[in-house]
Parts: sequence; C-alpha cells; structure tokens
Amino acid sequence: MNENQYTIEPIGFVRSGLLRLEDAPRQGEEGAPDAWVDLLPELSEACTGIHVGDELIVLTWLHRSDRTVLQVHPRGNVHAPLTGVFATRSPDRPNPVGLHQVSVLEIAGHSLRIAPIEAIDGTPIVDLKPVWPRQGAKG
Amino acid sequence: MNENQYTIEPIGFVRSGLLRLEDAPRQGEEGAPDAWVDLLPELSEACTGIHVGDELIVLTWLHRSDRTVLQVHPRGNVHAPLTGVFATRSPDRPNPVGLHQVSVLEIAGHSLRIAPIEAIDGTPIVDLKPVWPRQGAKG
Repeated sequence: MNENQYTIEPIGFVRSGLLRLEDAPRQGEEGAPDAWVDLLPELSEACTGIHVGDELIVLTWLHRSDRTVLQVHPRGNVHAPLTGVFATRSPDRPNPVGLHQVSVLEIAGHSLRIAPIEAIDGTPIVDLKPVWPRQGAKG
Repeated sequence: MNENQYTIEPIGFVRSGLLRLEDAPRQGEEGAPDAWVDLLPELSEACTGIHVGDELIVLTWLHRSDRTVLQVHPRGNVHAPLTGVFATRSPDRPNPVGLHQVSVLEIAGHSLRIAPIEAIDGTPIVDLKPVWPRQGAKG
C-alpha cells in the first residue's frame, strides 16, 4: 500500500428498508426513511454519551459509487452544466464519503435508530460525530 | 485487504503555517489561521464550480491520531467524565476523519486558500463538499 493511502475499517453498517440505489432519494430530507446504525459490538463504549434526541453527523462510505468520476451534471439534469464533483454532493467522487445530519430516535444496545438517512441497507459507516456550531471542528 | 476495508487516496494536502500538533487550536474558530488546500493536479477538473466566497466542508484524514482510543475526557479535561469518542470531536477515534467548515478566500490553479482550519501542515485531504442546508446530503 502506498504510504499516502489510508484504510477505513467500518465502525458499523446501515440497516434500512432502502434496499436499492434506485429507490434512494437524493438527499436525506427528500423522503428518506429512518434506519438503524448497527455498530460493531466491540465499539459500544465509543457511544457513551450519545442520547435520544441528539443530532449527529453520520459519515458513510458510499461503497456503490464510481470513484473515477470528476464532473457531473448536478442532480442528473443533463441540461445543467458539467460541474466538478467537489462543488456537488454527487455520490460519485474520488473518496465517496457521505455526510448525513440525523436525529437519534432510539438506542438499543449498540444500535441507534436515526432519521433521516438516504443510505441504502448495508452501507458501511465511517464515523459518528456530534453536531457543533458551524461544524468548524477537528476530529 | 479485508473485503470490508476501504482505501482513501488523498485528493490533496493542507499547506499551513501550523507545523506542530501542539500549536493547533482544538477547533477552527479558536484562532486557527488560513491555509492552502493543494489539490492533486490531475483532479483540478473536479473543482469546476467552486468560487471565492463559497462555504465548503473539508474532510481531512487526521493522520497523527490514535485509532485505538474509544473514550476520552472531552477537551482534555481530566475532571470531565470519560465520554465515547463518537459523542465528541476528539481527533483520536477509529477512523480519524476531520470535518471543517471553511470559506474559500482565494483560488490559484488547483490550490484553494481557505479559513479557518486548525489542521496541521501536511494533513491529507479526503474530500471537499458544498455546504447545504442541514447537511442532510448524500455524497
């Protein structure tokens, strides 16, 4: 492995009724359902301090994405000019990390029920973070 | 490599006057300087559509972090109760992705001058995304 590559090991996976990419809304607030985040049991102590009602940022790895895409027509509209993926929320991008702001609805063991999230069933989870003012935060 | 591992290839690196972790503020708004994001030249077309004045989310890989840490005393305060890293912005966490909301101050070729960002010089960059309402976005 190149010294400038880094390895993500998922901390858990999304469990959702959204089974197919074709059924997923483009954004969480466009009709996305609630879903479960099933964390690895060995990471449960990393969740201490998360409570029902908290707002979290969930980082996912959009494992079905095309990492070679550098420009897209935003929202798939072929009449919109081609735009660099770093100026869009396209899931196709060099490092396909998804960013989702969600509310915690329920906690059961090392699983969290959250909403809204448009990621499909089985999507790997990279990280959870608290929402902070202006997101200007390290870590 | 395990089938459930994913590889991040940095899209660029932070160029900053902050050279040492000890000098970095905990959060971008606590006295962090501006800095340059030097993107890989071969990715410059992925920046089309980013303009001076835009607000971006910068995802970094906090390569100096301890990935084995699951609980911390928030903000290093030993009198604060141990808290799971997923309820904090600790840089030490299983997948040390940093999240920074910044303004674009200047664009020069495939480099962007941004502020505020507390990441040290040489920090790998994972992704850039536009800021959207409530961050509830895929990709």
